[in-house]
Amino acid sequence: MKPIHVGLLGIGTVGGGTFAVLARNAEEIARRAGRPIVITAVADKNLERAREVVGTAAGVRITDDAMSVVDDPAIDIVVELIGGYGFAKDAVLRAIANGKHVVTANKALLAVHGNEIFAAAQQKGVMVAFEAAVAGGIPIIKAVREGLTANRIEWIAGIINGTTNYILSTMRDSGRPFADVLADAQALGYAEADPTWDIEGVDAAHKITLLSAIAFGTPVQFEQAHIEGISQLAAEDIRYAEELGYRIKLLGITKRVAGGIELRVHPALVPAKRLIANVEGVMNAVLVKGDAVGATLYYGRGAGAEPTGSAVIADLVDVTRLHTADPEHRVPHLAFRADQLENTPVVPMSEVESAYYLRLRVQDKPGVLADVARILADNAISIEAMIQKNAAQKEPGEGGGEADIILLTHITREQHADAAIARIEELATTVGRVTRLRLESLAS
Amino acid sequence: MKPIHVGLLGIGTVGGGTFAVLARNAEEIARRAGRPIVITAVADKNLERAREVVGTAAGVRITDDAMSVVDDPAIDIVVELIGGYGFAKDAVLRAIANGKHVVTANKALLAVHGNEIFAAAQQKGVMVAFEAAVAGGIPIIKAVREGLTANRIEWIAGIINGTTNYILSTMRDSGRPFADVLADAQALGYAEADPTWDIEGVDAAHKITLLSAIAFGTPVQFEQAHIEGISQLAAEDIRYAEELGYRIKLLGITKRVAGGIELRVHPALVPAKRLIANVEGVMNAVLVKGDAVGATLYYGRGAGAEPTGSAVIADLVDVTRLHTADPEHRVPHLAFRADQLENTPVVPMSEVESAYYLRLRVQDKPGVLADVARILADNAISIEAMIQKNAAQKEPGEGGGEADIILLTHITREQHADAAIARIEELATTVGRVTRLRLESLAS
Repeated sequence: MKPIHVGLLGIGTVGGGTFAVLARNAEEIARRAGRPIVITAVADKNLERAREVVGTAAGVRITDDAMSVVDDPAIDIVVELIGGYGFAKDAVLRAIANGKHVVTANKALLAVHGNEIFAAAQQKGVMVAFEAAVAGGIPIIKAVREGLTANRIEWIAGIINGTTNYILSTMRDSGRPFADVLADAQALGYAEADPTWDIEGVDAAHKITLLSAIAFGTPVQFEQAHIEGISQLAAEDIRYAEELGYRIKLLGITKRVAGGIELRVHPALVPAKRLIANVEGVMNAVLVKGDAVGATLYYGRGAGAEPTGSAVIADLVDVTRLHTADPEHRVPHLAFRADQLENTPVVPMSEVESAYYLRLRVQDKPGVLADVARILADNAISIEAMIQKNAAQKEPGEGGGEADIILLTHITREQHADAAIARIEELATTVGRVTRLRLESLAS
Repeated sequence: MKPIHVGLLGIGTVGGGTFAVLARNAEEIARRAGRPIVITAVADKNLERAREVVGTAAGVRITDDAMSVVDDPAIDIVVELIGGYGFAKDAVLRAIANGKHVVTANKALLAVHGNEIFAAAQQKGVMVAFEAAVAGGIPIIKAVREGLTANRIEWIAGIINGTTNYILSTMRDSGRPFADVLADAQALGYAEADPTWDIEGVDAAHKITLLSAIAFGTPVQFEQAHIEGISQLAAEDIRYAEELGYRIKLLGITKRVAGGIELRVHPALVPAKRLIANVEGVMNAVLVKGDAVGATLYYGRGAGAEPTGSAVIADLVDVTRLHTADPEHRVPHLAFRADQLENTPVVPMSEVESAYYLRLRVQDKPGVLADVARILADNAISIEAMIQKNAAQKEPGEGGGEADIILLTHITREQHADAAIARIEELATTVGRVTRLRLESLAS
């Protein structure tokens, strides 16, 4: 049968993986897809790199002019692996305008400009597939969009950034501080030279934005996401959390609540007994709670050449099957039909309900704990657990020194927690700032 | 848009869950599927039960004549939840002959008669969807069949029977013997009155048969599966495994090897640090290793009314989208195009390679261990770990009693392990039979 012709824009890590897997497994992929899927054009600014990856493969045009691939009438599907919002956006929109289907791994582009891109694709009757944009090789987009269609999704919580999970795992194992571990991760290639988007939660926020849209049938709402990273996380909080039976993970969370949708990325304590708490190193995992199915978990490699290439190719097979079909037979881009999306608002963080981990340093004097407990009670916050530790400089029982108080609260509203923290910080006996982390039980 | 009309055959647990979820989430499901999916006929021998489930829902015909639903020209999709190979097979084949699509949760039917059924469906150009047949609410069929299409699948290992996983978890937690725990499971409704298919591994074998076919592009080969259950498993082996850092799980395994495909169900030791080793109670999990993606894991509820109903409805949405499409646009029943299936043989168990856990009771005399070690060496089997325990009746150091020797071997061929075991059992110092369990590292 006539092959599908694919043009690949960007042949770095993921492009190289996609090219290699598509070549290696060509026969088996064709047995599934019903026809060969063939990369016939590769565009990259670095022609040498492109030539190296393509090697002796026959019939592949190599160019540094990506738009010439986008405009090539012989190309059926454009795979965009350039990244960023600039040229990538122009290329994707032009491919759509040319009536080509698009497969992309670009979460930033879709989280920020997805509404415009999906609308253009809808109008042109082409597909924009993005399995590779979230959690690398894990088919999580397909699971949520097609596997759980029976469900009213209640929430999703995911470890969807491998760099930060590697750093957190290593901080826990070694007891070393963030900056040290980050430097090692950079040396090992697990963190980029500029790691800001990873460590500050922006990458995870792009991904949870996409998951939120397909779970709840809304447009993408990245600009509404609450984003906190792990760069301020202290090694001692990982240790204290451990003592209390929790692991700290950077979670992307989206949840359906009475007032709308929660959309947030931040470090959180998770009970150590949960499967997701035991996802270590660069691995990713996404927990999805549906009203009918209950909790389901999806685990695997969230990055890397071939795992991400695996997701790109899965999309290519899907598009290959459906590219000549009536658009009504296709799965909608955002899981719900385009005319059925609802503008459900993202609730402000102050209204989010959560349990909290609080760590405060206090002067070790009588009445200090009573003052703290009173402030929490005044804000209707119940205490679930507490540990007190003498700060390092004094011996136990010596008195007059400083102590760390670590509290776990029951669920409260964030604005109440904030109000209580502000008052605790005003106490004369409180030393410095209160460390506040959220606690997610992830019970199902 | 015109609704899709569904006829439901069998309204027990799963049928009831399907009916309830489809009613409760009707609006959200229609926003995804593009049209309402409506159950307009329900057939069950127990009319009273059917009336109870349907309740006051309008426009639902209730009948005890399932074939009248299968023959009803107003029905687009038949959902078969009767179970078994007898009437269910006739009903499914007749629905296909009538040009209707079929959704079924019936793993026994498809594992045993799937080749006939899929061939009939292929010829008629209708779909037979079976997400609910494996691992309940976990969208594992979709993940393997569509999410991992880039990959040459290397192996799948799954906890795909909740009853046995509940029993094994409880045996480990409580230290109690199999028969006691089974009785409790029956009282709690986690095991059926006749639990044979669950505890002897037959149900898991049905499911791994289906996963094997879609992973490797073969017909279903249930009659070739090697099946061992957990009814012979001793509580002490669970304890010893734990001491050695392993959990015992009933696994369905299928693997691509040089000589063909392995297809087997048996209890196995799994390293306790693996995520899948920590899947407890009635939960299911499936680990899939692809050459590009590496290991991915899928976890959730493997049974129950609404989790299984979730899978049935996901199939209904898929079929709804594609039912008027050209069959070439659809995902093939067994993941590979029907004309692309290969008759890859299942290798005999004697040729399977595995590591082993061996437990033998011996007379506590000098030279016993040397004899055992010599026999293993003669069969080219290396020892990975060993523990020796005095049997209960004697005090340590007393001598002249009996001891348990527990050995973990490196990987060997099953026929070598069998040969070594036979010779060990012939030793005058060996008391009774050698207990032999396989050990799966599930490394990725």
